[in-house]
Amino acid sequence: MPHLVVLYTGNLDKLTDMNTLCRSLADAMLSVKDEAGAQVFPTGGTRVLAYPAPYYAVADGGAAGKAAGGDGDYAFMYLNLRMARGRSAATQKRAGDAVLAAVRERIDPLMKERHIGVTINVDEGAEVFDAKHSTIHSLFKKP
Amino acid sequence: MPHLVVLYTGNLDKLTDMNTLCRSLADAMLSVKDEAGAQVFPTGGTRVLAYPAPYYAVADGGAAGKAAGGDGDYAFMYLNLRMARGRSAATQKRAGDAVLAAVRERIDPLMKERHIGVTINVDEGAEVFDAKHSTIHSLFKKP
Amino acid sequence: MPHLVVLYTGNLDKLTDMNTLCRSLADAMLSVKDEAGAQVFPTGGTRVLAYPAPYYAVADGGAAGKAAGGDGDYAFMYLNLRMARGRSAATQKRAGDAVLAAVRERIDPLMKERHIGVTINVDEGAEVFDAKHSTIHSLFKKP
Repeated sequence: MPHLVVLYTGNLDKLTDMNTLCRSLADAMLSVKDEAGAQVFPTGGTRVLAYPAPYYAVADGGAAGKAAGGDGDYAFMYLNLRMARGRSAATQKRAGDAVLAAVRERIDPLMKERHIGVTINVDEGAEVFDAKHSTIHSLFKKP
Repeated sequence: MPHLVVLYTGNLDKLTDMNTLCRSLADAMLSVKDEAGAQVFPTGGTRVLAYPAPYYAVADGGAAGKAAGGDGDYAFMYLNLRMARGRSAATQKRAGDAVLAAVRERIDPLMKERHIGVTINVDEGAEVFDAKHSTIHSLFKKP
Repeated sequence: MPHLVVLYTGNLDKLTDMNTLCRSLADAMLSVKDEAGAQVFPTGGTRVLAYPAPYYAVADGGAAGKAAGGDGDYAFMYLNLRMARGRSAATQKRAGDAVLAAVRERIDPLMKERHIGVTINVDEGAEVFDAKHSTIHSLFKKP
């Protein structure tokens, strides 16, 4: 934890650089602080994975978008952040807001030209088993 | 919301057209009505994303399928519909049934020739943060 | 159920054979027994799907890994096992441990050379609708 998984319609690949967006999203997550001012997400445990869907269908398939003067090729991005249990509602909101701000910085300019939907959900992990095994975490341990 | 995410073994790509299936699934979702006869899923918020898995393993790997006269190349499709909280159980069932019917229309003919498994889960979103940002929704707002 | 979905940074594809790992994971799942010694996951319902992410960001992006003598190209693998409700905590733990052991057998040798993170979550399905439709299950029904 945390994992941010980004699922999106593949037509966005030609409109924006997803590796850059992933990095912006990771940086946004790393910037989140709790009420005491401490970093919420451990650096070594912060991960963003983005998946373009090769096949998709959105809304009415394009008719309304064309009628409004667009190309009818709707795009959609769904961002799901799964974070560990036990954080305050205020911290969860700060995490969601940070992700939203990072997405908007990149997507808002595209929205002026195109019909795009973005949804962000933050889920509190409810797993019944959790195991971590890593050679990344120790890189960021304070001595 | 709602999002329908379809995860499936990549061997299905050569058997059926996934963009067509995505559209059928979206149309099925848009057709769902609640107890009052109102459309359950807003048109501008209805999305289907389908992901073929390039790597997978199913059941015993094929031995039983070959013994039964098949090619042992099992296929599998998992459909996960995440819908907003607060819908009635009857509406949730209608949504699941609509998705199932759309899949069966396309997959049942293939099942006569091949060993295929389909599972549909409808989840009620339990997110602790939800944000939407869209230039699609407004296309479908009633004036 | 059960479904094991593996999401991972695409750089792992050049380091390990994912079809082999999927098969090992499926075999590990099939080996899990409950307190009475019975197989937990039905053979015909056991599925592993693995998805390399073409775009991703991990931790600090590589600086700490390079400083530690690595190439800074961190890898990450997230394994999510969704199993049916109602299993004992001991069975859930055995399932998680079996998945972890199968991953470690393959990933531990790579960890000696590289910075890699692995997280396994077992979730108990909380779906409000569940439908199964299959020509695989009947292959494994006892007569």
